Amino acid sequence: MALHSGTAEPILGIRAARCWFPEKTRRPADEVRIGNLTPEQAARQGDVTLHIARSWETESAPAMAVAAGRAALSASGVPADGVGLLAYAWTNYQGNPFFTAGHCVAEGLGLPRSCAPVGIQQACNGAAMAFSLAAGQLRMDEHAHTLIVAADRFGAPAVDHWRSHIMLAYGDGASAAVVGRPEPGDAFHLLAVEHVAAPELWRTRDDYEGFGPQPALAPPYINAMPTEKFSDEGGRPRLRAVSHECITEAVDTALDRARLSPGDPRIARVLAPRLSDKVRELMIGPIEEKYSDRVVCHYSASGHLGAGDFLANIAEAETAGDLAPGDIVLVLGAGGGYSYTCAVLQVPLERAA
Amino acid sequence: MALHSGTAEPILGIRAARCWFPEKTRRPADEVRIGNLTPEQAARQGDVTLHIARSWETESAPAMAVAAGRAALSASGVPADGVGLLAYAWTNYQGNPFFTAGHCVAEGLGLPRSCAPVGIQQACNGAAMAFSLAAGQLRMDEHAHTLIVAADRFGAPAVDHWRSHIMLAYGDGASAAVVGRPEPGDAFHLLAVEHVAAPELWRTRDDYEGFGPQPALAPPYINAMPTEKFSDEGGRPRLRAVSHECITEAVDTALDRARLSPGDPRIARVLAPRLSDKVRELMIGPIEEKYSDRVVCHYSASGHLGAGDFLANIAEAETAGDLAPGDIVLVLGAGGGYSYTCAVLQVPLERAA
Repeated sequence: MALHSGTAEPILGIRAARCWFPEKTRRPADEVRIGNLTPEQAARQGDVTLHIARSWETESAPAMAVAAGRAALSASGVPADGVGLLAYAWTNYQGNPFFTAGHCVAEGLGLPRSCAPVGIQQACNGAAMAFSLAAGQLRMDEHAHTLIVAADRFGAPAVDHWRSHIMLAYGDGASAAVVGRPEPGDAFHLLAVEHVAAPELWRTRDDYEGFGPQPALAPPYINAMPTEKFSDEGGRPRLRAVSHECITEAVDTALDRARLSPGDPRIARVLAPRLSDKVRELMIGPIEEKYSDRVVCHYSASGHLGAGDFLANIAEAETAGDLAPGDIVLVLGAGGGYSYTCAVLQVPLERAA
Repeated sequence: MALHSGTAEPILGIRAARCWFPEKTRRPADEVRIGNLTPEQAARQGDVTLHIARSWETESAPAMAVAAGRAALSASGVPADGVGLLAYAWTNYQGNPFFTAGHCVAEGLGLPRSCAPVGIQQACNGAAMAFSLAAGQLRMDEHAHTLIVAADRFGAPAVDHWRSHIMLAYGDGASAAVVGRPEPGDAFHLLAVEHVAAPELWRTRDDYEGFGPQPALAPPYINAMPTEKFSDEGGRPRLRAVSHECITEAVDTALDRARLSPGDPRIARVLAPRLSDKVRELMIGPIEEKYSDRVVCHYSASGHLGAGDFLANIAEAETAGDLAPGDIVLVLGAGGGYSYTCAVLQVPLERAA
């Protein structure tokens, strides 16, 4: 029980995290009604509601990123000129190679010239990775704040909301978190964040002409499923086995770094990526099983948010307001390629005061 | 003169940096001969030789990244399993959103699961930004090494080697650096690296439909020039003025952090981005003027390498072998959007021993 007595020093504080979603929503049944999905396609997608962006003016990915970033900054009390790094993650395309989405978001938020806007790319796990990079920046300058933002807008002819994956729906939206030196009033303290990569699994995509000089679009949409070649070579059981190994290692290492035992009763929530039941089992099965009484998954409320799941789950946990000081939250991340993350958050004990 | 007496503690050591270029080369005159450029287009491009990638098997961007990464690791003596972070930067497309180029490079190099492969996107300045992120990771774990890699392969129908910009040619190639805790045998110590951003300049691209759900290709190639709209609104003089302000601020701040005066006689080289004369004047004019006797630019030998200029210049400075212990090298970076960087390197004094 010695492990229960203490936790590691936090590596950063999450001042506040917020989401921003477009108002328009669609469910599979709606799409069947307008002839956009067959009843069979709708049945495979199950019960899920997607937010769907409309106007490019206010609901492009960078515009949604600005809305979420503004909400997080406002809730945090950190002024725009207190931000030293903008770490911006996305999955679906945001313009050609000369369109710098991060700068567009930085201008929308009025961030200063001293703040570097940088895109963090790790498929759907980029925002999780950004927490490690932000922790490093904090060691370089203890007064620095990092604004971590993720935003994705899907839609034909690239990644289609409903058809790019037969059992996973992609929803639009943005999420953001302001992080800095740990303070008593923070929403959460980050005790540890660990990443495990399985580089060999880039081959799930290896007949996508990924090397090519232009994005390999396959009209009318990009297929997000592992390729037939990968599956034919026994890839699916390997993907599952490797994923289970990697997410288990990420959780074990993160808990160890946080000086917590896996059975610590303070672990109040385990936040799962916003993936459908089948894809979640493939990616994080053993962890869901282990913490089945504490797993929270918001997939049915938003679909998979691309690079946004990790941040949106933190924002949701903060704003739900049902956690007590000292409570521990494990946040799980997963992304194609593949990457696996576990972050250990704690509601600051000082909040009790 | 007090400022001449010392320098700041290095924030990281560059063990080794290396480039890898395809064998095939082309000059404007060659392209005129085969009818690919008009004599007028060739004249505007001036004297420049590009390396041109051929086989996708061995000269795709990730394949070139693996070749450069392997060369840098080998020269550094750091084993693959000693790398904790792979920071991979590129400008031109490397596959669809589900193709994770960083993982592909990590597998090619045999990097371990504990090494996170992450894409660092800041148009052509991503690799420069990666030095700051690597310095932060080193503060988290002093034994960590980061492998910073940049690779780009251009070509129609996306960014065209010769036609995407009327006075800037884009060449193929890759470059890599292994960085870690400063050691006496390092090629360079990094004394400071400073970034200045001009987020408002994302508007150089604002009729590119950058917000769109798919990359805004404009066949037969993507235009990299500032848009007519931007120019019509007086954008060009503003771009020049803001660029000159920002690069000056980056250099001043970096020298200050490194505790060097601008006139320090140990400043032996100033490495300019691989841009044509006209574009270089636009981006870094005042610095070139100030250090005109020490500026080195390799544009004519390779063209602009996309995200690779910064690393390739460091590799070139290392392998040229004409610097003495204590010599200072300023490395300048610039990228669309826009971003400006100055790094202050020093050849370790211990090398004299």
